Amino acid sequence: MKFQDALDAAERISGYVLRTPTLRVTPTLTFKLELLQHSGSFKARGAFNRILTGDVPEPGVIAASGGNHGLAVAYAARRLGVRAEIFVPTVTSPVKVAGLRALGAEITQTGAIYSQAAEAAAKRAAETGALQVHAYDQPEVIAGQATTGVEVMEQAPDTDTILVAVGGGGFAAGVSLGSGAVPGTAGGGGPKIVAVEPELIPTLNAALKAGEPVQVPVSGVAADALGASKLGALAFDLLSRTALTSVLVTDEAIEDARRTLWRDHRIAAEHSGATAYAALLSGAYVPAPGERVVVVICGSNTDPATLVIN
Amino acid sequence: MKFQDALDAAERISGYVLRTPTLRVTPTLTFKLELLQHSGSFKARGAFNRILTGDVPEPGVIAASGGNHGLAVAYAARRLGVRAEIFVPTVTSPVKVAGLRALGAEITQTGAIYSQAAEAAAKRAAETGALQVHAYDQPEVIAGQATTGVEVMEQAPDTDTILVAVGGGGFAAGVSLGSGAVPGTAGGGGPKIVAVEPELIPTLNAALKAGEPVQVPVSGVAADALGASKLGALAFDLLSRTALTSVLVTDEAIEDARRTLWRDHRIAAEHSGATAYAALLSGAYVPAPGERVVVVICGSNTDPATLVIN
Ligand SMILES: Cc1ncc(COP(=O)(O)O)c(C=O)c1O
Ligand SMILES: Cc1ncc(COP(=O)(O)O)c(C=O)c1O
Repeated sequence: MKFQDALDAAERISGYVLRTPTLRVTPTLTFKLELLQHSGSFKARGAFNRILTGDVPEPGVIAASGGNHGLAVAYAARRLGVRAEIFVPTVTSPVKVAGLRALGAEITQTGAIYSQAAEAAAKRAAETGALQVHAYDQPEVIAGQATTGVEVMEQAPDTDTILVAVGGGGFAAGVSLGSGAVPGTAGGGGPKIVAVEPELIPTLNAALKAGEPVQVPVSGVAADALGASKLGALAFDLLSRTALTSVLVTDEAIEDARRTLWRDHRIAAEHSGATAYAALLSGAYVPAPGERVVVVICGSNTDPATLVIN
Repeated sequence: MKFQDALDAAERISGYVLRTPTLRVTPTLTFKLELLQHSGSFKARGAFNRILTGDVPEPGVIAASGGNHGLAVAYAARRLGVRAEIFVPTVTSPVKVAGLRALGAEITQTGAIYSQAAEAAAKRAAETGALQVHAYDQPEVIAGQATTGVEVMEQAPDTDTILVAVGGGGFAAGVSLGSGAVPGTAGGGGPKIVAVEPELIPTLNAALKAGEPVQVPVSGVAADALGASKLGALAFDLLSRTALTSVLVTDEAIEDARRTLWRDHRIAAEHSGATAYAALLSGAYVPAPGERVVVVICGSNTDPATLVIN
C-alpha cells in the first residue's frame, strides 16, 4: 500500500465522514476526537471506503465485528441504500447491539469472540454473495482508516508522535500510512507511532516478538473492540516496517483513562477509545520533554451511565 | 465596550483556557464545542479574564452562580492559587455541587434561585472584601465570554449566523461583541445572532419587548444555568444594539436536542448547553437555504446517566 491510497480514500469518502476536530489540551498534548465520527468510531472511514470502491451486489454487504465495525458498515449501508448483514459475538456490548438494531441491520449474534463471528460471516458470505467488508484486513479498509492519519498531520503538522490503539491492527496501520510514518510508501518523514494494546489482548506485541501474527488470548474491558485474536496480515506488513513503539496497558489503566477523559475533559469514550490515552496517563509511554503528542480518542459506543466510576 | 476588549481578553486568558474545537456536521451546520472548555462551560473565559484583570485581595474571590459560573470561578481560583467562596441556590444540580466540592471551593447553598444566592453573595462580599466575579454583568466577564465569538469567526470565517443560549445575557452579549456583530464597537460586519431562551425563562425576550430588563419567572429544565431572573444591564446595552433574532424554545425541545446531541453526535451536553441547538431542531429558527450556521454547545456539567432518555 502507498500513501496515495490514503489520499484517494480521503477524496472518496469526504462527503460521507466527518473531519473530526483536534483539541490542544496542553502545548504538547493534543486529542484527535475521532470518537465524534459518524457511527461513534473511525470505523466509518474504512467501511465507506471499502463499499464505495467497487459495485455492491444485490445481496448487499456483510461484516463480522466486535461491534464498532458493524455499526460503521450498517451506518454506511443505510446512507448508501444497500442491505447490511452483521455478525457479532456474544462479547459485544448491549449498547452496540441496540445501535445495530436502530440502524436496521440484520444481526446474527454468534460465537464468544470476534474470530468466531468472523468465521460464521465468511461462511454466510460464500452462500449469499454479499460484499465482505473486513474489520481490518483489507487494503480499502486500511486506506479508509488512514485518512485519520492524513487529517492529524494537516491539523497538527508539528506532531512528533501519535498514540493509537490496536486490535486487528487496521487502524494503527492506517494511521501510520496516512501520517507518513511507513518507510517506502512515499509518505515521507512522518511521526513516530506508539501502538497501544491491553495486556490482555497483545496481538501486535506478540506478532512483533514472533516475527509474524500469532494467536493470543482475548479478554478484559476492551475485548468488544480490541478483541481480534491475531493481527491482520496487511497490518503486520505495514506496522513491522514502521518506526513504532509497542506498549501494553492494564485494564485498570484503561478504566482510569476513561474516567479521566470524562471528569477532566468531558469526552465520553468507550474503553478501547481510552486505551491510547491510558499509555500516557499510566506512564507506559513517557514522552521526551517538549515532544508533541497526539492521542487518538477513537470510540464512543458506550453506556454513558458507566462513565462515572467512584 | 469595544471589539478590542475581546481581543485583549483573548490574549490575557490564552494560557488558561482551551481554544475549543469546531465540528462541521454538514456543509451549513457547525458546532462550536465550548462544552469541552475547562470547568465544563464557557464560563471559565469570563472568570479568568475578570480575576486576571486586577489584583486579588487576600480574602480571594467570591461569586454567586447557578453552578457553572461557580465551577469556573473555583477552577480559575485553584489554578491561580487564590481562595474562592461560591454561593449557589438550591436549584443547582447535585453534579455541580459535587464539582464545586472537588475543586475545594467554600460553598454556601442558599435561596431557591440564582438571584437569591446573588443577594447573599453580595452581602458577604461587603463583609469580607473579596473580589466579586459577577456571573454576567461585568465588562471583564463579558469580554472573557466574547473570546468565544472571536474564535468562532477565526475557525469558521464564512459563518452567517451564530445560535447562542441566553441566561443573564453575558454570553450572548460577549459572543455578539467578539464575533463583530455589535454595530459601533469596531468589530465590523459580523454575523447575525440568534439568541435562544427557554420559554420558561425569557429574560432577553421580555427585555426586548419592555425596552429594558424586567423580572421574569424562572423554572424548567435549564433553570440551574439559564436561571437569571433579569437580563444584565451591560448585556441589554450590547444586545439591544445588535441585529439579533430572539427565539424561545420549549423544555421538550431542549430535552430532545440534548438526546439528539448524544445519540447522533456523541456530545454530552447539559440542558442549557443544548438549548441553542433546540431552536434549530424544533424549527423555532429556520435558516435560509445555504445559510451557514454555527451552534454554540456551551455546557457539559451533567450526570451522564441522564443522557439516554427513552
Ligand atoms: C474504538 C476502537 N478503537 C480501536 C479499534 C482497533 O482497530 P483495529 O482492529 O483496526 O486495530 C477498534 C476496533 O474495533 C475500535 O472499535
Ligand atoms: C452552559 C450555559 N449556557 C448558557 C448560560 C447563559 O449565560 P449568561 O448567563 O451569560 O446568559 C450559562 C450560564 O450559566 C451556562 O452555564
